[in-house]
Amino acid sequence: MTKARKSRPGDGTLVIIGGHEDHDGDRLILKEVAGLIPDGRLVLATIASDEPEGYLEKYRNTFGELGVNDVSELYVRDRPDASNEEHIRLLDDIRAVFFSGGDQLRITSQIGGSAIGDRIMAIYRDGGLIAGTSAGASMMSETMLVKGSSSSSFRTGDVRMAPGLGLLPNVIIDQHFAERGRIGRLIGAVSQNPRELGIGIDEDTAIVVQNEEFRVIGSGGVYLVDASGVTHSDVADAETSTTASVHDLKLHVLSAGDRFDLRTRRPIAEARSKEHS
Amino acid sequence: MTKARKSRPGDGTLVIIGGHEDHDGDRLILKEVAGLIPDGRLVLATIASDEPEGYLEKYRNTFGELGVNDVSELYVRDRPDASNEEHIRLLDDIRAVFFSGGDQLRITSQIGGSAIGDRIMAIYRDGGLIAGTSAGASMMSETMLVKGSSSSSFRTGDVRMAPGLGLLPNVIIDQHFAERGRIGRLIGAVSQNPRELGIGIDEDTAIVVQNEEFRVIGSGGVYLVDASGVTHSDVADAETSTTASVHDLKLHVLSAGDRFDLRTRRPIAEARSKEHS
Repeated sequence: MTKARKSRPGDGTLVIIGGHEDHDGDRLILKEVAGLIPDGRLVLATIASDEPEGYLEKYRNTFGELGVNDVSELYVRDRPDASNEEHIRLLDDIRAVFFSGGDQLRITSQIGGSAIGDRIMAIYRDGGLIAGTSAGASMMSETMLVKGSSSSSFRTGDVRMAPGLGLLPNVIIDQHFAERGRIGRLIGAVSQNPRELGIGIDEDTAIVVQNEEFRVIGSGGVYLVDASGVTHSDVADAETSTTASVHDLKLHVLSAGDRFDLRTRRPIAEARSKEHS
Repeated sequence: MTKARKSRPGDGTLVIIGGHEDHDGDRLILKEVAGLIPDGRLVLATIASDEPEGYLEKYRNTFGELGVNDVSELYVRDRPDASNEEHIRLLDDIRAVFFSGGDQLRITSQIGGSAIGDRIMAIYRDGGLIAGTSAGASMMSETMLVKGSSSSSFRTGDVRMAPGLGLLPNVIIDQHFAERGRIGRLIGAVSQNPRELGIGIDEDTAIVVQNEEFRVIGSGGVYLVDASGVTHSDVADAETSTTASVHDLKLHVLSAGDRFDLRTRRPIAEARSKEHS
């Protein structure tokens, strides 16, 4: 039982968005988020941004049109703010939090291991909704990609990682995935420890995680990079400037409607056909 | 025997370059090409380009510095040129041809099924060297990628393919691979017929093909996408504007020194360690 708890820190729902979710067209993703808010109240956490001006208005407009009229903002300028009673009180009775984009390291360095960080985890553990886009997606994973060249093959030593908030254990999440050509850096990251599954999420695309399964929504693709069957990898030996070699990676590309089991690391075939019928 | 011949149309060497090979620094790739020219004579085929001015000078300079002093140009402005005696004579006794970049469809539409096309194949069949960069790399494969969005996930119907010159059968080659975020389109291409192995080559990186094996040279990575074990793919069913789903692709990332067996579709482990010793 302890083990099951460990691999599933929350009974709630995560919506992990690859950035640039649509605000003007069909708004598939934000519509889904709106439908998952338990009580019509949402806190927009703009912590990832240095200059969060304008975010609240933008999300308030879109969510308002989707029937969610109680949207308030949580901003943390520096670390003491994250233990400040007034800030913590913003999360009282809140059951849904949406993290907007910016720098994932701002989120974790400001609220990781703080009272606010604990509250976020508690909301998720108690069945609430935590959604995040771009930096707000990256920070959900146990280990978080911080930096690393996009649009080039992985050079050992070129990927910087840091601990994420750990809402979703055993995975490394990357966002803006196809758009920024990030397959190389995600392969580099998971090859360093294949215990973690790589999840690359395209823009205007999201995974909705419940009970250690997820389904894909939105217009793009989701890439699963599984290095657990790798037969050769030189990430530990090679010079840091050398392109890495990794043999026998498994790759799945999923799109809207597809489901995936995070325990078995397998796409769920039946659910998909059911969805189509 | 007929089958073996079919899967190996030539006894020569192919150097297939992902574009932007270095001309000023260590020139690893062009040095390799220079060393493979059997008799010090090279024909530069600038056919892929609409405006080939300057190419001959550039390659003559670099190859001259590498000890290859007899570099002449083959250009074909339109299709009749490809059967023109004067043009064909340029290839008399030539045992090495280098295709520069541009548009792969220019190469195949001008010389595919022509006397010059036949001569190129004969040079390769008889043990000569055919090298090509960028468009000159793409055209080597049996089926050639012509168009398809880079830096986005594959949408069914978004990839245009055409017959290549077929120097390397059973593969689809893509170039500028990590740099232009092309994993999505290569997955899309090979998923349409997993008989063909996808080979994505980074810039300043090449594969040197001999006897149905290749080794990697240069500074970047080479991606092998093998769809033969795919358990689910909707490329035949989905709407052309829909992102495709493909489960259980196999992916290898290779780098300088790695070898790969095209018959078994496996990296060659021993050769690599030998190379390192």
